[in-house]
Amino acid sequence: MQTTRLMRFMSPSKSRFPIHFFSSTPSPPPIEPTPSPNSPHLLSVGHVLRFSRRFMDQDVARFAEVTGDYNPVHLDSEFAKSVGGFDRGKVVHGMLVASLFPSIIASNFPGAVYVSQDLKFKLPVYVGDEVAAEVQAINIRQIKKKFIVKFTTKCFTNEFHPVVDGEAVAVLPSLNLMK
Amino acid sequence: MQTTRLMRFMSPSKSRFPIHFFSSTPSPPPIEPTPSPNSPHLLSVGHVLRFSRRFMDQDVARFAEVTGDYNPVHLDSEFAKSVGGFDRGKVVHGMLVASLFPSIIASNFPGAVYVSQDLKFKLPVYVGDEVAAEVQAINIRQIKKKFIVKFTTKCFTNEFHPVVDGEAVAVLPSLNLMK
Repeated sequence: MQTTRLMRFMSPSKSRFPIHFFSSTPSPPPIEPTPSPNSPHLLSVGHVLRFSRRFMDQDVARFAEVTGDYNPVHLDSEFAKSVGGFDRGKVVHGMLVASLFPSIIASNFPGAVYVSQDLKFKLPVYVGDEVAAEVQAINIRQIKKKFIVKFTTKCFTNEFHPVVDGEAVAVLPSLNLMK
Repeated sequence: MQTTRLMRFMSPSKSRFPIHFFSSTPSPPPIEPTPSPNSPHLLSVGHVLRFSRRFMDQDVARFAEVTGDYNPVHLDSEFAKSVGGFDRGKVVHGMLVASLFPSIIASNFPGAVYVSQDLKFKLPVYVGDEVAAEVQAINIRQIKKKFIVKFTTKCFTNEFHPVVDGEAVAVLPSLNLMK
């Protein structure tokens, strides 16, 4: 149901590119590749990989514990409103939201190694918001037996405005998309 | 002991700027501000804030659980060597290492809001490595009652080469460093 809902608001049917879609879970996500006209299971320029997730209080609390980032804008609704200026209260750590990008890439390409990631945090992601993350391959270079791939990386909480925007570069051991 | 060791290899005594140093812990870190010649407790351009931490297997496992990033280069030593090309085995998630930056900023300035973060992952951080993270204020602008601060953001595992390098911009509710 969540996938259906997300597919509607992301309008994937309008995309020119094959879309790999999988739904929210904190455990290794199931992947549902859509066959490409060129090659059914090889990443190519234009390919979009998506994943959606809703971060709840316990996710934010666990992220704070493991990273040591106890900024009260993530943990205290009144503080988030009064000091952070977030009218709906607690917001998700930006780096937790941004971790969706390497998570999407690694779940499709185990052994992927991150080279760079630029992030612009444009709008807050509130605790409980559904976040749709997408990465799109925009450049692929082969060096010896590995592949250096540049991706655009975006998260949305509604149809129009990315809440997180940027680019990432990763070295992939192959272009084979996992089934 | 850890602080002493880190202070030696980071050579903070050579710095022109006041250094705020605190030692490794996943809970809200104690902060030891060093008085600035200008103002004892106000952030100014050139100020350096540092924090050191060693990420262990359980930190990486918990980060994988909360983010959903189960890339085996973080969890399986043989895979990390053979597929990832990491000669010492398992590496820490780049985004977990990078989370040290907002953690340092937020622990000094509760209510800080991240605007952007650029990251270049230059060298691997292996599980068990001691990581020294530092942020340095390079630009401060006041807009109404808030402060937009640009920081350089670096992590080191030895004296010479940053393993993670980049810049961040954050909105701070004040320039007061917490005692």
